[in-house]
Amino acid sequence: MNDQPLILVTNDDGITSKGIRSLVEVAKKFGRVCVVAPDKPQSGMGHAVSIHGILRVVPQPIFGEGIEAYATSGTPVDCVKLGIAQILKRKPDLVLSGVNHGSNSATNILYSGTMSAAVEGAMEGVPSIGFSLLDYAADADFDATMVYAEKLVRQVLNDPQLPENFCLNVNIPKGRPEDIKGIRFCRQAAAFWDDWFDHRQDPTGKDYFWLTGEFKNHDKGTDTDEYALENGYISAVPVQYDLTAYHNLKHLSQWELQ
Amino acid sequence: MNDQPLILVTNDDGITSKGIRSLVEVAKKFGRVCVVAPDKPQSGMGHAVSIHGILRVVPQPIFGEGIEAYATSGTPVDCVKLGIAQILKRKPDLVLSGVNHGSNSATNILYSGTMSAAVEGAMEGVPSIGFSLLDYAADADFDATMVYAEKLVRQVLNDPQLPENFCLNVNIPKGRPEDIKGIRFCRQAAAFWDDWFDHRQDPTGKDYFWLTGEFKNHDKGTDTDEYALENGYISAVPVQYDLTAYHNLKHLSQWELQ
Repeated sequence: MNDQPLILVTNDDGITSKGIRSLVEVAKKFGRVCVVAPDKPQSGMGHAVSIHGILRVVPQPIFGEGIEAYATSGTPVDCVKLGIAQILKRKPDLVLSGVNHGSNSATNILYSGTMSAAVEGAMEGVPSIGFSLLDYAADADFDATMVYAEKLVRQVLNDPQLPENFCLNVNIPKGRPEDIKGIRFCRQAAAFWDDWFDHRQDPTGKDYFWLTGEFKNHDKGTDTDEYALENGYISAVPVQYDLTAYHNLKHLSQWELQ
Repeated sequence: MNDQPLILVTNDDGITSKGIRSLVEVAKKFGRVCVVAPDKPQSGMGHAVSIHGILRVVPQPIFGEGIEAYATSGTPVDCVKLGIAQILKRKPDLVLSGVNHGSNSATNILYSGTMSAAVEGAMEGVPSIGFSLLDYAADADFDATMVYAEKLVRQVLNDPQLPENFCLNVNIPKGRPEDIKGIRFCRQAAAFWDDWFDHRQDPTGKDYFWLTGEFKNHDKGTDTDEYALENGYISAVPVQYDLTAYHNLKHLSQWELQ
């Protein structure tokens, strides 16, 4: 044991993705790294947790010397729970999730396995950051992400007044480090998916559907993550998990139901 | 076509569960009902959505005459998306989710397929209510739930000033209707799972794990859902989906990162 920070790294694209490798490269500059990540892609899994199925955990030492790493059959949130309660058997100093191949801005945070893993870390009292690059390509260029992830990790690990249950949703525009204008701290935009379904037939003539759609930003604010990203900035939204609509409690108190 | 409200009903325990049947019984008193629900249990699926797999939709007319019903291979959130974008091809007047067999109070809302379906409804601009009974039994007694669900559905459908993107997380204590003290509108308690894993070996000697744990309420407030439920009331938490931690934005603005 030493005083090095202990950093748990996970993602939702799977342990063999390029994005998590970039994040491990950053994390290992700061302390001891333990990777617990899905053994297959788990994008769009939200805050799903395996309550009706078993979990497998297999050592997967693919990140080089000194990096403990495990592939699990579970969801990203399962990985955080397994990492803390079963593998490390203590709370790490930081949870890092990602780098996701694709955006998790605005309401995408709700569908995102990457961000749900970070939220789970915060719920367990561990400062957590989720990173997502606006590039879905398997061989995306993570150089800019690594530059700014290092700045953010250093800040979080060294901030003596870090807020409790701290969580950050960081999205990085596509581009080289020199193209990035900086980091903007902002709110989640009111931007949503306009869904539709591609209706097809399988070789036996049975119907099936693919979910597809278009992401639409209805939010005109200049203080949102969508605005920051559209203008060449990295967006960083502080995240919390109390879903109470406090602004509606007064209205409800007027209902006469008893 | 007529002026009857159109009500989309879903759940996460699957289309054949007793809980959804109770909710359909309530819904059909108010208008045209369309059920779109998972073909198998999908508990703990959170806001998961099928972005990398196909979806099947099969008519399942098991709720009696006049009730359109479909079983899908998807998650609860998929069901809401399929219901609105593919099956109904328009927004219903109300989304009802549940009745879940088991509690979705406090932070359980994040893991809950039942509540994530309701949140998805609200995100699509449809007033939504999720119902959960504090009884995991397959043959649980839903009488009290049905009495109060009817009161709440009537109120929501008839409230001329219902807040936009309205969503409600309703949990009902176990017991007969006469045992319930009433409905309390409250906030989400800061109560969390203390996780652990049951470590077992399969017949070939390979390790596997079951997620288990204990739900602990650290919140001393008397305005929470946990407090209401412990004291014999139905809890009703108004829900929103902006996860921005606005209270942390000021602190972050002091970081010097560029």
